[in-house]
Amino acid sequence: MATPASARPLAVVLLSGGMDSCVTAAIARQTHDLALLHLCYGQRTEARELRAFRDIGRHFAVERTLVARLDHLKGIGGSALTDPSRDAIDARRPGSSIPDTYVPFRNTHLLSAAVSWGEVMGARRVYIGAVEEDSSGYPDCRREYYEAFNRLVRAGTRPETRIEVVTPLIRMSKAEIVREGARLEAPFHLTWSCYTESDTACARCESCLLRLKGFREAGAADPLPYRA
Amino acid sequence: MATPASARPLAVVLLSGGMDSCVTAAIARQTHDLALLHLCYGQRTEARELRAFRDIGRHFAVERTLVARLDHLKGIGGSALTDPSRDAIDARRPGSSIPDTYVPFRNTHLLSAAVSWGEVMGARRVYIGAVEEDSSGYPDCRREYYEAFNRLVRAGTRPETRIEVVTPLIRMSKAEIVREGARLEAPFHLTWSCYTESDTACARCESCLLRLKGFREAGAADPLPYRA
Repeated sequence: MATPASARPLAVVLLSGGMDSCVTAAIARQTHDLALLHLCYGQRTEARELRAFRDIGRHFAVERTLVARLDHLKGIGGSALTDPSRDAIDARRPGSSIPDTYVPFRNTHLLSAAVSWGEVMGARRVYIGAVEEDSSGYPDCRREYYEAFNRLVRAGTRPETRIEVVTPLIRMSKAEIVREGARLEAPFHLTWSCYTESDTACARCESCLLRLKGFREAGAADPLPYRA
Repeated sequence: MATPASARPLAVVLLSGGMDSCVTAAIARQTHDLALLHLCYGQRTEARELRAFRDIGRHFAVERTLVARLDHLKGIGGSALTDPSRDAIDARRPGSSIPDTYVPFRNTHLLSAAVSWGEVMGARRVYIGAVEEDSSGYPDCRREYYEAFNRLVRAGTRPETRIEVVTPLIRMSKAEIVREGARLEAPFHLTWSCYTESDTACARCESCLLRLKGFREAGAADPLPYRA
């Protein structure tokens, strides 16, 4: 039986609008009241991701939402996700283990906004849909990063603040995430993952390839439209 | 003898425009080329602080500057610095060791922007003028917080990135900072510290009181105009 809504602790969920964050929200709402946070940072598919955020929030009937702009991430540059002159599809640099779509230190910006907002509201958790093994090798998707971040939260917030950052997907494969999302009736049809397109997913960028592989391995149909 | 400019490593200095960050920049430029970063987050004296940032940057002849907006910090609220309905002068809450001017988890936002920018430029250091003992009890001004943040940088950036956050003032008193600034000819006349006013400093807010005490104890004259 679900915990009554009034007795539930509050959690901030970082919701990009992709499949991972959507499943993370579906997991969090089993035990927590939700506050949904979305960040725009000049990424190519910004408007499409914002639409997915709004759609998923409505689907879950969440009233507390916040959209924050981090435009300086585009000004800082250094990533194919925010720099139109770089190729976001064939994005692995020769000799580097980190794809060119890596936005330098990005997750720290997202988590900082979540912790600041969560501290003001008295939230107990921040959920983020980071995935370690099946991700793209981004350094800020590893467990070690989140352990370090939680130490930072304890050191850098009010003594009475008790916020823990949790990563329920971190050890899962994309196929396991698809299965968990299906089990929890996560609205995959409202999500968006493609790095480059906003109408029909490209089926070529790293994010599309990982997503399609996940659905295929889970034996499920991806409801999004893809280019042939 | 100073290191020749061409052989110097690059450092990002977080320059709010106050006396502490100004002295920090004066310390950093002894050994590093500088890149100056300023963040606007809807604080009351935003325009005045931005002017101080520009003036100090010109004084030190720094070409690499970046101003980033973190408007969601105002949206998130929770601080007398960004909420005009709160009193920024008599700001200590009954029973709390943290003043009401504390902006939740703020320094993590500032440092994240500095690390992202520094990673793109290949910087080796991020300087921040945090002061532990003589500060206002903000949790993100303590050494323990910076140790945790440096662990986070190591865990969350590219393997080839080598950025260290340094806090040269952290053990100093305000009087020692005044003396160090005078020794390095830091342009105190271009700085701004008051939390509430932009023309004549109020001489009543916590920031003015700490600054005035520092100059008095150092036996130096503060060049800023104060209300009688």
